[in-house]
Amino acid sequence: MTNTTPTTNGSTGRVTVLGLGDMGSAIARTFVDHGFATTVWNRTASKSAPLVDAGATAAATAAEAVAASPLVVICLLDGTAVDEVLAAVEGAVAGKVLVNVTSGSPAQARANERWARERGAEYIDGKVMGDPPDVGKPHVRFPFSGSREAYEAHEPTLRLLGGIAYHGEDAGAAAVEFMAQVAMGFEMLIGFLHTLNLVRAEGGDVTAFTERLTDSLSGYAPLLTMMANAIKTGEYGPDLGPLNVQAALMDDLIGHRESVGVEAVRMREVKTLMDHRIATGHGNEGFSSLFELLPK
Amino acid sequence: MTNTTPTTNGSTGRVTVLGLGDMGSAIARTFVDHGFATTVWNRTASKSAPLVDAGATAAATAAEAVAASPLVVICLLDGTAVDEVLAAVEGAVAGKVLVNVTSGSPAQARANERWARERGAEYIDGKVMGDPPDVGKPHVRFPFSGSREAYEAHEPTLRLLGGIAYHGEDAGAAAVEFMAQVAMGFEMLIGFLHTLNLVRAEGGDVTAFTERLTDSLSGYAPLLTMMANAIKTGEYGPDLGPLNVQAALMDDLIGHRESVGVEAVRMREVKTLMDHRIATGHGNEGFSSLFELLPK
Ligand SMILES: NC(=O)c1ccc[n+]([C@@H]2O[C@H](COP(=O)([O-])OP(=O)(O)OC[C@H]3O[C@@H](n4cnc5c(N)ncnc54)[C@H](OP(=O)(O)O)[C@@H]3O)[C@@H](O)[C@H]2O)c1
Ligand SMILES: NC(=O)c1ccc[n+]([C@@H]2O[C@H](COP(=O)([O-])OP(=O)(O)OC[C@H]3O[C@@H](n4cnc5c(N)ncnc54)[C@H](OP(=O)(O)O)[C@@H]3O)[C@@H](O)[C@H]2O)c1
Repeated sequence: MTNTTPTTNGSTGRVTVLGLGDMGSAIARTFVDHGFATTVWNRTASKSAPLVDAGATAAATAAEAVAASPLVVICLLDGTAVDEVLAAVEGAVAGKVLVNVTSGSPAQARANERWARERGAEYIDGKVMGDPPDVGKPHVRFPFSGSREAYEAHEPTLRLLGGIAYHGEDAGAAAVEFMAQVAMGFEMLIGFLHTLNLVRAEGGDVTAFTERLTDSLSGYAPLLTMMANAIKTGEYGPDLGPLNVQAALMDDLIGHRESVGVEAVRMREVKTLMDHRIATGHGNEGFSSLFELLPK
Repeated sequence: MTNTTPTTNGSTGRVTVLGLGDMGSAIARTFVDHGFATTVWNRTASKSAPLVDAGATAAATAAEAVAASPLVVICLLDGTAVDEVLAAVEGAVAGKVLVNVTSGSPAQARANERWARERGAEYIDGKVMGDPPDVGKPHVRFPFSGSREAYEAHEPTLRLLGGIAYHGEDAGAAAVEFMAQVAMGFEMLIGFLHTLNLVRAEGGDVTAFTERLTDSLSGYAPLLTMMANAIKTGEYGPDLGPLNVQAALMDDLIGHRESVGVEAVRMREVKTLMDHRIATGHGNEGFSSLFELLPK
């Protein structure tokens, strides 16, 4: 097979994408648009049509798709789907670089890495943080980890996908980053829904409230940075104000939520942690010092 | 008593501050610095010394302090302290405007408003969102609510304290705003501590992680706005991605947290809500649609 497509430094210009859901399609499309000889495969074959129209080649089986390129990007629904597809391509992976950007756990990434190594393939785990239509833009972040050699060889290709970063040779590291970032997002968003429920219960306007809230959000970046430094050094300044003062709010906060029927799980937890720190002589420290009470 | 201090529109140039903790002292200092004849009182009298040095007058009792000015700002630790001090000044409040900026619940604010009205005083409830050293700067927000007439008369004076806003005649409204904003802050911050615990459990660097996290935070303002609009209209687009896709992460996320000993309270709640929405035919909607499942 002669490669007539443009090659970027270290890349051969041939790439395969397994999985053409919203995200896999956006990834495949990015490669096609950059002139790569792109081979695609999807369980439901019809989903490859728009990519074939754009210039990709559809393979009849996942194994044929893997055989077509040195670099194979896998983007499926979840770890179960990855396991099934890897089992089907087992005979074709030797010598390939597998880049799996399916969402999943660090343990899955580490298991995939072992699986690939045992079959003579190199493995890079990646995670996608962003929306399919934005793939290719730098604010869609792709943490990667695993084989450094393979990552360095294919970095110019991977960089086409968005804001990439290498998190180290532990194949699980990209997933740790992803899990931590996603969980933090869910913490904020579920807290936000309960907060809007409180606003609604009191007859407030949820969009006007959100406008004021987003104004305050910009103040949180420096606070989080300060808190992370305190946690790293173990020197807990009063950040938000001393716990002695903050704790005085908690009963009111909890009582108010109960009175309007809004849950108070985190508020009760915060109060318990604050009370414990105050009782052990840390009432002049800040919110960050509650970190000391989390299970190690 | 001749008033030789500068007057602002609608203000007499005389103001009293009850409570000289960190916040009350910062408030009193702001008035002194703007040339107000400022009378101060604190339970522990010695705390008035720096303010007296700066030009304030210390009153011997809270009632004397109230008698000295038409506008009385109250800034104590909590509602219990306010109740005690109000009881002590009961005979002096007729004809005064009481502005209570002590943190507390909407119910306390409403009770204080009734108490004041029954004694011939006007009541404005306020809350302070910011740090004492920043009082006077616009990013320290002071939601106010209660007597509109009194608020309008004293707005030029109150404006010296920071970014003020009037939330309506329900004396509890400023406290609702405060409770909602503070709770949202605590949701984020306790979620952040658990997230850093996850990062630490996996051997990651908490400050490097936080740097990446604060980068992503700027993306949340437009997302929250979009979600609030969806909640207001009941038209739930896929915001973060359809629940069908998001839900596929949840078991991994929860399993990972359990495997490293990090709590998963909110993650389990999110999963339960997502599963319920998917099971009832809303899998193509976004995270915001979980709002439908919160207690009304
Ligand atoms: N969409 C987003 O906003 C977004 C954002 C960040 C990360 N991600 C992640 O990207 C990955 C893909 O998401 P997506 O949005 O593309 O999901 P999607 O649109 O639902 O597509 C899922 C893909 O997985 C395939 N699949 C599922 N089970 C399979 C199995 N057992 N064997 C073979 N193929 C199987 C589907 O094939 P069929 O077409 O045959 O069903 C389809 O190609 C997920 O891990 C997701 O968490 C998505
Ligand atoms: N500090 C902050 O960062 C901050 C930020 C936003 C809002 N706030 C709110 O502002 C209010 C005051 O906070 P702060 O920082 O000034 O607190 P603080 O430094 O602990 O001062 C507490 C004040 O309350 C007085 N007090 C407590 N119990 C009393 C009682 N039973 N009778 C009379 N006075 C009593 C104290 O008098 P003594 O001096 O005699 O003890 C002191 O003046 C609180 O509601 C707080 O939530 C504070």
